[in-house]
Amino acid sequence: MPPEPFFAGPGLDRADSLRADPDKIRGLAARDDARELVWEGGLPAIGSSGKLQWRPASGPALFLGIDRAGTPSFCGLQADVAGGPAVFSLLGSLDAEDAPLFATALSLARWHSRHRFCANCGASTEIVRGGWSRRCHACSAEHFPRVDPVVIMLAEHDGKLLLGRQYHYPPRRYSALAGFLEVGETIEAAVARELREEAGIEVTDVTYVASQPWPFPSSLMVGCTARALSGELKVDHGELEDARWFTREQVASALTDAPSGAFQAPPPHAIARTLLEHWLAS
Amino acid sequence: MPPEPFFAGPGLDRADSLRADPDKIRGLAARDDARELVWEGGLPAIGSSGKLQWRPASGPALFLGIDRAGTPSFCGLQADVAGGPAVFSLLGSLDAEDAPLFATALSLARWHSRHRFCANCGASTEIVRGGWSRRCHACSAEHFPRVDPVVIMLAEHDGKLLLGRQYHYPPRRYSALAGFLEVGETIEAAVARELREEAGIEVTDVTYVASQPWPFPSSLMVGCTARALSGELKVDHGELEDARWFTREQVASALTDAPSGAFQAPPPHAIARTLLEHWLAS
Ligand SMILES: [Zn+2]
Ligand SMILES: [Zn+2]
Repeated sequence: MPPEPFFAGPGLDRADSLRADPDKIRGLAARDDARELVWEGGLPAIGSSGKLQWRPASGPALFLGIDRAGTPSFCGLQADVAGGPAVFSLLGSLDAEDAPLFATALSLARWHSRHRFCANCGASTEIVRGGWSRRCHACSAEHFPRVDPVVIMLAEHDGKLLLGRQYHYPPRRYSALAGFLEVGETIEAAVARELREEAGIEVTDVTYVASQPWPFPSSLMVGCTARALSGELKVDHGELEDARWFTREQVASALTDAPSGAFQAPPPHAIARTLLEHWLAS
Repeated sequence: MPPEPFFAGPGLDRADSLRADPDKIRGLAARDDARELVWEGGLPAIGSSGKLQWRPASGPALFLGIDRAGTPSFCGLQADVAGGPAVFSLLGSLDAEDAPLFATALSLARWHSRHRFCANCGASTEIVRGGWSRRCHACSAEHFPRVDPVVIMLAEHDGKLLLGRQYHYPPRRYSALAGFLEVGETIEAAVARELREEAGIEVTDVTYVASQPWPFPSSLMVGCTARALSGELKVDHGELEDARWFTREQVASALTDAPSGAFQAPPPHAIARTLLEHWLAS
């Protein structure tokens, strides 16, 4: 089995078969035990225990699914949804078992807040399928929540690993290179293109390692390794502040998170860290 | 290396670094050797040789990239873009080397034809980044072409393979089960959910095999295998006409494409066939 990054896991039973029936969704929301997520500062609230917080459901807005105890679980619409690096520090306190649900609710609520109109004709749309779609009455187009695949990868050459620094990173942080997969590409082609564009290297043996939903706003991180044909780098400084090769010892020292480490490793909730741990163990 | 499905491959150099500069894109389109795709019946035209057809570029609408000979390659905006099962029969004649470019142009042109308005505010948007984005002047939102990840998978149990029939399939066709990956899911979680929903089975050991861009309209097919914990099926007949287990011999006979085969295998351009061939060879 691939390693399990943060945000991975089954979450709730999404009960897809119920979504098509508005009466069933309304019935679930009206039940005494129906619950909805508490939000705080544009994010699902995280309690002192690290668990998501719930209150009685106020309506059937977004149907997240049914938990193991059979509890129907909802999320209200949110006018403002937070995201990006500013909230990453909160993730350290989030319980790993609740993380998939946090990711689902955050991505879904954000999508609704930014997709209230029909991209095909500009008319306003309405929520259908328990929040898993929006339909346009003017042109009948149906729009589904986006999931944007991103490739994130470690290139290896001569026993060393390629890592890069983006300009906005904290001091001494190096991490895996990454980029959005585009239409017409395989995962393998996107990995090769990103490494060519950002580091000037050609690669072979692209190998899938693990994937992760990344709710800022709604990416699917696809983690891979690849073998570089040469160690010579040509870094695109429009994209990266720096990129360089690190030895196995340097990676191991960074993963101790000690200040004496060769660099500051990516945090535990990032799939880049999962990739580094997987590489070191392999 | 993973097997290479149809539509996989490098295609053109997308020359991402040029997209941000409208003057450079205009300059490329104005060159004597600049070319644009010929369209026919809502699709990039396929010549008798199986190659895509080109004519001199009429403008800088959608910048596809630069081919190996250095030729700037464009695609015009299309009001009507075809798609779906009706065009699959044409794919048999498409040259495999041109297939990634066919997929890229089809998905990109279709996205523009259906995303002329801002999903955030309903205003009309304009093309930027050489056709790789649309920007809204009313609210400043930037919208990127969608890539929708779809998981497609073979479940194995007791040496047999699970395949299903959708209601619209041609007679005797069986193929891999598939479904859209949702926000908050890993690839592995989506595979497990789809097999649970459609066939009533629990799986383990989800393993990535290969990926494929599928331009109807713009999916990323993520091909996997999984091991079922039991052979007992509970087929969701709302989704599938049938699902059943096939032996290695039955799969081998189907892949000969002989009328005497155990079932009609998916066509060569489908990643489902790649998965079957990969399973049989493993
Ligand atoms: Zn519409
Ligand atoms: Zn707008």
